[in-house]
Amino acid sequence: MEHELTAEIRTVAIIGLGLIGGSLARDLAGRRVHVLGWDSDEHTREQARSVVELLADDCSEIGRADVVVFAIPVRSAVKRLRELAPRLRNVRLITDVGSTKASIVRAAEELGLGDRFVGSHPMAGDHRSGWGAARTGLFAAARVFLTPAPSASGEAKRLAQALWSLTRPEPETMDAADHDQRLAWSSHLPQIVSTALALSLAQNETSRADLGAGGRDVTRLAGSDPAMWADILIDNRDALTPAIAMMMARLAGLQSAIESRDHNELQRLFGDARTWHRQE
Amino acid sequence: MEHELTAEIRTVAIIGLGLIGGSLARDLAGRRVHVLGWDSDEHTREQARSVVELLADDCSEIGRADVVVFAIPVRSAVKRLRELAPRLRNVRLITDVGSTKASIVRAAEELGLGDRFVGSHPMAGDHRSGWGAARTGLFAAARVFLTPAPSASGEAKRLAQALWSLTRPEPETMDAADHDQRLAWSSHLPQIVSTALALSLAQNETSRADLGAGGRDVTRLAGSDPAMWADILIDNRDALTPAIAMMMARLAGLQSAIESRDHNELQRLFGDARTWHRQE
Repeated sequence: MEHELTAEIRTVAIIGLGLIGGSLARDLAGRRVHVLGWDSDEHTREQARSVVELLADDCSEIGRADVVVFAIPVRSAVKRLRELAPRLRNVRLITDVGSTKASIVRAAEELGLGDRFVGSHPMAGDHRSGWGAARTGLFAAARVFLTPAPSASGEAKRLAQALWSLTRPEPETMDAADHDQRLAWSSHLPQIVSTALALSLAQNETSRADLGAGGRDVTRLAGSDPAMWADILIDNRDALTPAIAMMMARLAGLQSAIESRDHNELQRLFGDARTWHRQE
Repeated sequence: MEHELTAEIRTVAIIGLGLIGGSLARDLAGRRVHVLGWDSDEHTREQARSVVELLADDCSEIGRADVVVFAIPVRSAVKRLRELAPRLRNVRLITDVGSTKASIVRAAEELGLGDRFVGSHPMAGDHRSGWGAARTGLFAAARVFLTPAPSASGEAKRLAQALWSLTRPEPETMDAADHDQRLAWSSHLPQIVSTALALSLAQNETSRADLGAGGRDVTRLAGSDPAMWADILIDNRDALTPAIAMMMARLAGLQSAIESRDHNELQRLFGDARTWHRQE
């Protein structure tokens, strides 16, 4: 079964050779897939040369690939998809790796690429970024969500499954809007909270070295890439507004219990949080 | 030098054999200190019996110890200190391990124990608690803060240094109020933020298993002990009010940048957070 699928994907082109694109390139190259690649950063291109065949700056040869993966921030991915659309006529699967899916799925449909577009979101990451942080096996323990365009063909869906099966088993398929709604809570809100805490501590001149192990955990995501996250958060703003509002309401509830010295209420709230923590 | 100090501390009594008290008991026993101990939980007493000599329920023999350590939540510690004060006439150092220091230092002075009281705060922890989580070496990489009572004697301060030198080097001495101010930011605010995020996710029915590695980091502290934290937060409420207000203002700032699609502002804020993260 697996051999059959591997045989179908001979050449994959990856636009963007950062943490996600680079790790995917390493995994695919390790499974004897021929990997074409491009990155806007010259140093990254030099580093990646031993693993991928570099495309020219205009990506004119991209049509040689069975599969094209956009592994750049979502706003850039939409832009590049538009630019490269004429060259993607013979590509059998077009996908991306962004943390939000509704806008790129919409763009693919508008460009007439919907039949071959299946969005991907591998939930793997790291506060480190770039080719230097990329590694084989980054996706081994990750969940991968697939969000097919409304007009995606059966073949495109099957190829998207096959692509990620090369790095890890069984991606989950869902609607792009549902995906973004879900990720607003499970990924984007934790990122915002970690960043807001870092900004608060910075303002108070509390350094990260002053924190205990727990505080270091809470602020770990604050090291994430600013441009990528600005893209994600703006793209998913509708789902994020109520999530951030909920977080602020919960902080206000704790604040109020502390100020009124309500030991029972604080114990109840911390007990609810611990129950949630244990139920995973 | 070290042998000299060890020789001075022959017997240590620890009230509360949870994560902190239990780990201290293990470290001290490993350094050939005789450890007396008591815990309100019978099962804990049974588990601890191989490491510590159990005190009777009234702790009548506590006066045999050179050093007494209260390793229970701060509100209980103040209460027990009051109850046991008459039995502590010959004890050379009385200390605790709480995350807030001003109120217990004040209580020690009021009870006439200030000359022998030096508060301790080992910044070690874990979301797990109890004797079962206690382990040798918990304090090895931790910072320890000492907050002497205003009337603490030189001998008491020296013994507090000696006590923690048995588990790790060089505790830092500071004023109790400064300590509480500092910890409001470096420890208590991260805890509140992690708990508020857990409560938000619970309300949205997002489970911890839905989170990526980063989100799991941010919510790790939400598994902490409710009674202990209710104590700490109420005890340190004056320092916490502005810290929580700052956090809410930072969330509101991010919210506003997201809603107005201000990519530059979001990049700037995430850039500031990342700069802080890297400067540790």
